[in-house]
Amino acid sequence: MRPSGRTASQIRPLSFTRNFTAHAEGSVLVEFGNTKVICTASVVEGVPRFLKGQGKGWITAEYGMLPRATHTRNDREAARGKQGGRTMEIQRLIGRALRSAVDLSLLGENTITIDCDVIQADGGTRTASITGACVALVDALSYLRNKGVLKVNPLKFMIAAVSVGIYKGTPVADLDYAEDSAAETDMNLVMTETGQIIEIQGTAEEAPFSFEEMQQMLGLGHNAILDIVAEQKRVLA
Amino acid sequence: MRPSGRTASQIRPLSFTRNFTAHAEGSVLVEFGNTKVICTASVVEGVPRFLKGQGKGWITAEYGMLPRATHTRNDREAARGKQGGRTMEIQRLIGRALRSAVDLSLLGENTITIDCDVIQADGGTRTASITGACVALVDALSYLRNKGVLKVNPLKFMIAAVSVGIYKGTPVADLDYAEDSAAETDMNLVMTETGQIIEIQGTAEEAPFSFEEMQQMLGLGHNAILDIVAEQKRVLA
Amino acid sequence: MRPSGRTASQIRPLSFTRNFTAHAEGSVLVEFGNTKVICTASVVEGVPRFLKGQGKGWITAEYGMLPRATHTRNDREAARGKQGGRTMEIQRLIGRALRSAVDLSLLGENTITIDCDVIQADGGTRTASITGACVALVDALSYLRNKGVLKVNPLKFMIAAVSVGIYKGTPVADLDYAEDSAAETDMNLVMTETGQIIEIQGTAEEAPFSFEEMQQMLGLGHNAILDIVAEQKRVLA
Amino acid sequence: MRPSGRTASQIRPLSFTRNFTAHAEGSVLVEFGNTKVICTASVVEGVPRFLKGQGKGWITAEYGMLPRATHTRNDREAARGKQGGRTMEIQRLIGRALRSAVDLSLLGENTITIDCDVIQADGGTRTASITGACVALVDALSYLRNKGVLKVNPLKFMIAAVSVGIYKGTPVADLDYAEDSAAETDMNLVMTETGQIIEIQGTAEEAPFSFEEMQQMLGLGHNAILDIVAEQKRVLA
Amino acid sequence: MRPSGRTASQIRPLSFTRNFTAHAEGSVLVEFGNTKVICTASVVEGVPRFLKGQGKGWITAEYGMLPRATHTRNDREAARGKQGGRTMEIQRLIGRALRSAVDLSLLGENTITIDCDVIQADGGTRTASITGACVALVDALSYLRNKGVLKVNPLKFMIAAVSVGIYKGTPVADLDYAEDSAAETDMNLVMTETGQIIEIQGTAEEAPFSFEEMQQMLGLGHNAILDIVAEQKRVLA
Amino acid sequence: MRPSGRTASQIRPLSFTRNFTAHAEGSVLVEFGNTKVICTASVVEGVPRFLKGQGKGWITAEYGMLPRATHTRNDREAARGKQGGRTMEIQRLIGRALRSAVDLSLLGENTITIDCDVIQADGGTRTASITGACVALVDALSYLRNKGVLKVNPLKFMIAAVSVGIYKGTPVADLDYAEDSAAETDMNLVMTETGQIIEIQGTAEEAPFSFEEMQQMLGLGHNAILDIVAEQKRVLA
Repeated sequence: MRPSGRTASQIRPLSFTRNFTAHAEGSVLVEFGNTKVICTASVVEGVPRFLKGQGKGWITAEYGMLPRATHTRNDREAARGKQGGRTMEIQRLIGRALRSAVDLSLLGENTITIDCDVIQADGGTRTASITGACVALVDALSYLRNKGVLKVNPLKFMIAAVSVGIYKGTPVADLDYAEDSAAETDMNLVMTETGQIIEIQGTAEEAPFSFEEMQQMLGLGHNAILDIVAEQKRVLA
Repeated sequence: MRPSGRTASQIRPLSFTRNFTAHAEGSVLVEFGNTKVICTASVVEGVPRFLKGQGKGWITAEYGMLPRATHTRNDREAARGKQGGRTMEIQRLIGRALRSAVDLSLLGENTITIDCDVIQADGGTRTASITGACVALVDALSYLRNKGVLKVNPLKFMIAAVSVGIYKGTPVADLDYAEDSAAETDMNLVMTETGQIIEIQGTAEEAPFSFEEMQQMLGLGHNAILDIVAEQKRVLA
Repeated sequence: MRPSGRTASQIRPLSFTRNFTAHAEGSVLVEFGNTKVICTASVVEGVPRFLKGQGKGWITAEYGMLPRATHTRNDREAARGKQGGRTMEIQRLIGRALRSAVDLSLLGENTITIDCDVIQADGGTRTASITGACVALVDALSYLRNKGVLKVNPLKFMIAAVSVGIYKGTPVADLDYAEDSAAETDMNLVMTETGQIIEIQGTAEEAPFSFEEMQQMLGLGHNAILDIVAEQKRVLA
Repeated sequence: MRPSGRTASQIRPLSFTRNFTAHAEGSVLVEFGNTKVICTASVVEGVPRFLKGQGKGWITAEYGMLPRATHTRNDREAARGKQGGRTMEIQRLIGRALRSAVDLSLLGENTITIDCDVIQADGGTRTASITGACVALVDALSYLRNKGVLKVNPLKFMIAAVSVGIYKGTPVADLDYAEDSAAETDMNLVMTETGQIIEIQGTAEEAPFSFEEMQQMLGLGHNAILDIVAEQKRVLA
Repeated sequence: MRPSGRTASQIRPLSFTRNFTAHAEGSVLVEFGNTKVICTASVVEGVPRFLKGQGKGWITAEYGMLPRATHTRNDREAARGKQGGRTMEIQRLIGRALRSAVDLSLLGENTITIDCDVIQADGGTRTASITGACVALVDALSYLRNKGVLKVNPLKFMIAAVSVGIYKGTPVADLDYAEDSAAETDMNLVMTETGQIIEIQGTAEEAPFSFEEMQQMLGLGHNAILDIVAEQKRVLA
Repeated sequence: MRPSGRTASQIRPLSFTRNFTAHAEGSVLVEFGNTKVICTASVVEGVPRFLKGQGKGWITAEYGMLPRATHTRNDREAARGKQGGRTMEIQRLIGRALRSAVDLSLLGENTITIDCDVIQADGGTRTASITGACVALVDALSYLRNKGVLKVNPLKFMIAAVSVGIYKGTPVADLDYAEDSAAETDMNLVMTETGQIIEIQGTAEEAPFSFEEMQQMLGLGHNAILDIVAEQKRVLA
């Protein structure tokens, strides 16, 4: 039995609030249960130096947590003077995943910066971030098309993400903090709207896992992501 | 005429959402019009080294802005590797103001850390932060009293803050961004619930100002703060 | 009775040594009693990126204390790898105050950097810094006029600064360290030579203060600054 | 056809030089073809603060590349003043993988630090690091047993790692730089000596991949790792 | 002919102002011609962690230059966020030289920190720093003896330093900036009061130098240092 | 008697392995007994900003030690976020020495970066670095001549370095760690192939040394360097 009473394949209530803040070209509050992340997409003309003059665009991401998004307060990274390894790992993942969803050669020499800031954490902040960021990105691309900067939509496909894992011996989808902190295995999946894999990151926390267990987790993740994409499309319609 | 259509003494719609996030001992979303700040108060046992063994508590504050809280995106301070001078100045002000409102010798050897994170900026973020932080602080003190850690309330008085300034030659209260960025003079006031001064910071942005203009601004600020304190008390009731 | 035996309105012996060091375009040792600050003004052609091409100049300031300027040694900020919040706050204040005294559009695309380095501290280092820096700035502007770079004097007015406060219940001017560390209230005033306000920063250290007390402090500060400006003008004559 | 002329499942010549440097408790030069990494294991008494008093040990890892390990010189991270995101990500992976192979409660309050320094890079530096580090770790554990610090061997199983990917549409094992920089998909696998999964990290570089492709890569990786473990055991025999 | 008109062996006018600032246990303004350095010695009880419990003392040094001590302004190291290589090299040299002059086992578990801050630079700042620091150190040791902390004087010998070099083919002593910036060879010598060598650092700036040239420079340096020590002793008498 | 059984003037077995790694334009593993350093020379077009447009080249050096190159593990400088003073001092020395050996005006606007990374330390790492770096530099210059970038060889002379010192009262050459850590005096010499001095750095570790002792050390160093240069030339032949 899961702490939340959910079935093994059941994801948490999912919600997207578009236009959550006023200034960004895309701004989404995404909620996976009690995990809440503000995802903004900021558009600027120009690209980083290594891309200049190639006619291509760029997408990058940054991730942060408010110090008291968690059960006990974490040091503010700005005050400590550097981003931790976990933060860097997550923001690299978010940026990579979103770039895979866009044909950068159709974006022109524009840069879209995605900021994912967790205001309340209850497990799965990186997968919620990717999922919400995709919606914010779509809004930012619409902004560019409405302004006439882009003539065609550079989005190749929607992407969404979810965590799966093995909790007390059973594969489950969309782990909350109570499960995540006790799981034997934790796997993050990023997939396209048609269920192809963009990124898979699985870690044996307590014990190695078998190919069979991985198949089960992949199956759970696949189904969850299809549901999540459906919700993304509903709120964007 | 003010850009917002407000009268000279009129403050923006004010709102406090208590328990805005789940984990902190005090958590308040404060809104001064379109300026929105999440203020959390986090309690931990123990005090910084310089206070150890004195039986007194400590209150400190940190301030941040989400990168896209503003019209154009600002660099993330955690990524730049340091907090800017403006951030440091503001968080020192917030901490100093809140410490003045509490009898630290009645707090026991506990530390309360206030985090003020601006999610949307439209002028007056530091005064909104102080005002919201005071509500979060009161909630955290209630938490300590309910848990039996504190027997008496160490709060000496409520505090609140507002900005005043001279905009197109006229003293006005609670400047929004449109006014703030064009004001001749900008003054931040922190006062007690009875209208005594905790902190005054006035800067001639465009031209020096006279004693007389200062009196007018003080008067506007005084009235505004009494209104703000009334609202703080209403939501805490 | 003040520890120094001064009357409430009496400032400390004040001295300016121009050309204190050899290389800077303006170099002043300013002494407010035992507080001693070396203020240099360094001129370079060109302006920061955000001002380029506008035909305007720029003035900025940096502040530091020698590690043993104080009763006990402070860590060297260069060795710690960052400037503290207090340092940042002070140097922002100095720069802002000096910029207000100069018509930057008459300065051409030149930058003047003011360095204020405290070699001995006895209270009031920031107000001494502003006061000495103004003299160094005037010397640097004369240098530019003598070299023919500037045809008109871009100085709008002299500025000077002083601290005032409430010490053992009595408003006093120009607090030394013995007073400053025990004052109920501390206020820094920057004014023009004609007594208009450039910056006011008042902090209730021990107890909130009333409008009436503020008026008294303002009066003391006003008189002190007029005396200080007279001395600035005398040494520059 | 692979640039190196290898078959799809063929790994590069593999070599381990134990006792490569003189001082470390374990020191291994691992070579996967032209990728060469010095892996040292350093033992110290004591554990990080968060583990103190629990009777458990700790294993952590750091990763670096000599500036000219690569085709063109990279900035030295020590000179830039921080480790990059890629470095952090890799060293977190190495540490996590090695901790999973050891029963930390049997290690006593000792810390083993693994340093993986790439002296020549030709693709697969992180998987070579893990593979070599495991041999260095075994040597360090033997050292502790020979010294009588440990009575039982805390090693649960050997681990090894390899990269697999899809290169020009074909799944291949152990990609070198020529393949890695052009691969559609890149996956790093860490497994136990019995072929269970410790970590899987797959990234769609150019195009999403299917479940079927993932199975093929897993199969290749599984076989490669069994071969690599056999070689680890041979050199340790 | 030297730019200053001095003979080859002639050093610049030398001056020591003791008690230059008020708070430090030793405080000396040292002037070698136009090179001016404030040297303070600060005493605290206790020693760094690596010396604890050994009954020995410690002496360390830090070095800095005011940004406009030089012909053109240098960036402030505190603002840049790190000390440069030249600064580190110099402060390591100063500390090492002073430690050699003191029997640390007679100092008790006390630490003396020497701060050398250059307020005006005209060549030879590191040798002036060592020379002035030795006087400040003697004053700090006297302070400790007067307070009864030390029963015997731990000073083994006075030390002093000077630069020598080859300027336009001729060996000269105590180079000023005009010479230093054009010298073929630059050598810094630290010696005891009896002319034994503590440190020698010679660098061929323009061309290698011969053993014979080195002997000539050593001879000049030896004589200069004996004169400098005589002046140190005179001001300390 | 020396711990290694060597005679006073005997240097350790010396070896240079050219082309030690694959990518650098010059790559040498240098071994002075158990001290082992990888020296690479990396060529890029262009020069630092301060040299642009002068038609001259630039040579610079960086130095590092693998964390476990030493008896006990040292913190990784990249992880600590800065290079230590010793590292900075050494890399400045290496760069300065190599620049003195090359006519930079014949190098064109090219930069050669020398990286010296110590993989095993047993005393004399800085002198081994300079000696090995000179061989790597010669290889990089040959590369530039073979490519036709340089028409004439800009090398003025070979350089080599060795440490000398006074160990148990006797001057000895090429100290290993056992001697270095107990020596009364330690001196590093860099000389040209004809025995002229490029750099001399002598430090009294335990006791001041006399002119006579310095002569003896210089003599030992001179002979050692001539032997070392002979070996450099042999391996380059």
